Amino acid sequence: MIDPLTWSCPLPLRDYPNVVLGHGGGGRLSADLVEHLFVPAFASTALARLGDAAVLPAPAGRLAFSTDSYVVHPLFFPGGSIGELAVHGTVNDLAMMGARPLYLSAAFILEEGLPLQTLGAIVDRMAAAAREAGVAITTGDTKVVDKGHGHGCYITTAGVGVLADGLDIGPDRARPGDVVLISGTLGDHGMAVMSVREGLEFGTRLESDTAPLAHLVATLLAATPGVHVLRDPTRGGLASSLNEIAHTSRVGITLEETALPVRPEVQAACDLLGMDPLYVANEGKLTAIVAPEAAEAALEALRGHPLGKDAAIIGRVTAEHPGLLVAKTAIGGHRVVPLQMGEQLPRIC
Amino acid sequence: MIDPLTWSCPLPLRDYPNVVLGHGGGGRLSADLVEHLFVPAFASTALARLGDAAVLPAPAGRLAFSTDSYVVHPLFFPGGSIGELAVHGTVNDLAMMGARPLYLSAAFILEEGLPLQTLGAIVDRMAAAAREAGVAITTGDTKVVDKGHGHGCYITTAGVGVLADGLDIGPDRARPGDVVLISGTLGDHGMAVMSVREGLEFGTRLESDTAPLAHLVATLLAATPGVHVLRDPTRGGLASSLNEIAHTSRVGITLEETALPVRPEVQAACDLLGMDPLYVANEGKLTAIVAPEAAEAALEALRGHPLGKDAAIIGRVTAEHPGLLVAKTAIGGHRVVPLQMGEQLPRIC
Repeated sequence: MIDPLTWSCPLPLRDYPNVVLGHGGGGRLSADLVEHLFVPAFASTALARLGDAAVLPAPAGRLAFSTDSYVVHPLFFPGGSIGELAVHGTVNDLAMMGARPLYLSAAFILEEGLPLQTLGAIVDRMAAAAREAGVAITTGDTKVVDKGHGHGCYITTAGVGVLADGLDIGPDRARPGDVVLISGTLGDHGMAVMSVREGLEFGTRLESDTAPLAHLVATLLAATPGVHVLRDPTRGGLASSLNEIAHTSRVGITLEETALPVRPEVQAACDLLGMDPLYVANEGKLTAIVAPEAAEAALEALRGHPLGKDAAIIGRVTAEHPGLLVAKTAIGGHRVVPLQMGEQLPRIC
Repeated sequence: MIDPLTWSCPLPLRDYPNVVLGHGGGGRLSADLVEHLFVPAFASTALARLGDAAVLPAPAGRLAFSTDSYVVHPLFFPGGSIGELAVHGTVNDLAMMGARPLYLSAAFILEEGLPLQTLGAIVDRMAAAAREAGVAITTGDTKVVDKGHGHGCYITTAGVGVLADGLDIGPDRARPGDVVLISGTLGDHGMAVMSVREGLEFGTRLESDTAPLAHLVATLLAATPGVHVLRDPTRGGLASSLNEIAHTSRVGITLEETALPVRPEVQAACDLLGMDPLYVANEGKLTAIVAPEAAEAALEALRGHPLGKDAAIIGRVTAEHPGLLVAKTAIGGHRVVPLQMGEQLPRIC
C-alpha cells in the first residue's frame, strides 16, 4: 500500500508541483505527463505506441463494453482511493455480464492546482489494481479544468472484455423460484468513505471493500451453469440493485433480513446515522441470482474464494409482487424496500 | 439543428427542472434519466438491455480502442456543442488508426443545477452525431457532483472500432520523402469557441468545423495503400500534431507556410489576438502523411469528399532536423515551429 504522503512522484516536473491548465493543452506539458507518468506506470505496449487509439487483438466471441466515471470525495479513504475504484468498478461491471475483462481506457479530468504528487499516487494505485485484475490500461486522455470547476481529479474508465459463447447473464433473467445470494458483508465501502468525509470515529476503523470480482465470477461460473443474474451493488446498495432486477425481470424478490451479512461496526455506524446498510454502496461484492438447483453449488463456490468467504443465501425470487423488493423482518413481518429517489450519501464512487 | 432555448425536454421530471445530486445516486431519479432520456435518445438495443456492460458482436480482425474527455466551455458554440464533440472526437481518434468505428460509451459528469433542458439538448446532439457517424452508443454512466465542483457537464466517451488486416497506420511511420497533406482549413473550431467565450465580434460568424472523419478516411484508404500516418489536429493544433509525429518517427517535417489553408476571417481573428492558426484546435480536419508516390491520389481522394474539398499538400518529411517541425515562410526564410508548453486557449474540447 502506498502512502500518498511519503510517495515520491517520478515526474521530472519540479518547476510544476501542481497541475496547471497547460497539462491538458496538448503541448509539452501534456506530453511530459504521458511520457513520464502514464506510460511508465501503466506499462502497456499498446499505450506506449502513443497512437490516437490503441490497436489490440480482437478476442473470439462476443465483446462486453462498459464505462463509469469516478468522482469520489475524498480521493483517498481507508482501504482504497479513486484509483482502485476506477479500475475495480469497470472491471466488475464487465464481470457482471460474465465477461473476462481485457482492456481498460482511462480519462482524467484534473483540476488546476492538484498536486502532481497526488496524481502520481492515484496513477500508481490504478496501475497496481490493473495488474492485480489482469487487465491492460491501453489508452487514455487528460483534460485540465480551471480551479473551482472540478474537485481534484475525476476519472472515467471504459473496459472491453470477452464473453464466452453460450453465457446469457443479465438483469432480465431472474425467474420465480430462483435463489438470491450475496458474496459478503454489506455497506463497508459507503461507511468507510462516510467515516473519513464526516470525520466520524466509530471505535473500529471501517475499510472499503473495493476489489476486482472477475476471478470470483469465473470461479462461480465454473461451478454451475445455473447463474441467471450477477450485479455488483455499488451506488444505492443492494436494495437498488435488486429493485432494478425485479423491475427488469418483472418478478418479485423477497429477502430474509436476518440472513444479510453486515459487520457489527458497519451496523453500529448505520444505526448511529439512521442509515440502512441495504442502501449503502459496496465496491467488492456481488449479488447472484441462480436457478434453485444451482444454489448450493454457487454458495460453496463463492465461499471457497477469499472474496466470497462470507457469502450467504439471502432470498428468493417470487411470482408475487412483481417489480417489488420485500424484506422479511426479524419478527416475521414484511416491509417493502423501495428504490429511493436519490442516494443517502452522494459522491461515493 | 436544435436550438437549446426552444428545445423541449422529453423527461417527465417536471418537479426537477435542474439536475440534483440524486440524479447520480443510483435510485429512482437515476433510473428516470436512463429510461426517459438516454435509452430513447440513443436507441441502441445493447443499451436498452440495461446490463452493467453492453454485450456486442466481436468484429473479426484487430480492435481499435480510444477515449477522450470533453470539458469545452461554453457547452454550445457556433457550429456545434459538447455533444457533437464527444461523438466526433472519439470517432475521429479511431479513424486516425484506420479503424472503422463501431461502438461508443458515454459517461456524464453533471454539475448539480444543470437544467435538464440543456442536458436533453446535448444528448439529442450526441444521438444525431452518432447516427451520422454510423456508431452505436451502447453503454453509459451518469454521476452528479455538487455545485461548484463541475462546469455544467463533462462528457467522456470511449470508442471501439475494427481495424482491417494489413493496415499499419501510426505516428511512428513517417519516413523521409513522405508528403504531408491537410484535409481543409486550419483553426476554425478554436476561433469559433474563442469568439463566443470572449464575446468577440469579427464581422463574419466563425463556425466550428466539428465533423466525423471516418468516412473521409475510408475514402482515402480506398484510394491508395500509401498512407503512413493520420492525425486529427485538435488541442494544440496542427503544430502540436506534427511535432509529436516528428518526435515519434524521429524525422524532420518542413511545412510550406504559404500552402496552409486558413479562412480569411480565421486569419483576421488570429491576427487580432496575436494567435497562430498552426496552434489553434480543429475538430473536423485530418493531416495525412503518405508515401511520395501516393500524394496525388491522396489529394484527389480527399478533395473528392465534402469534408476534404479544401485539402492541400502542405509539406514534406525530411531526414534533416529529426524531431523538429520547420516552416518555410512566405519570404523564403525558415522558422522552427516548436511544441508549446501548454495551449493558447484552454478548454477548447
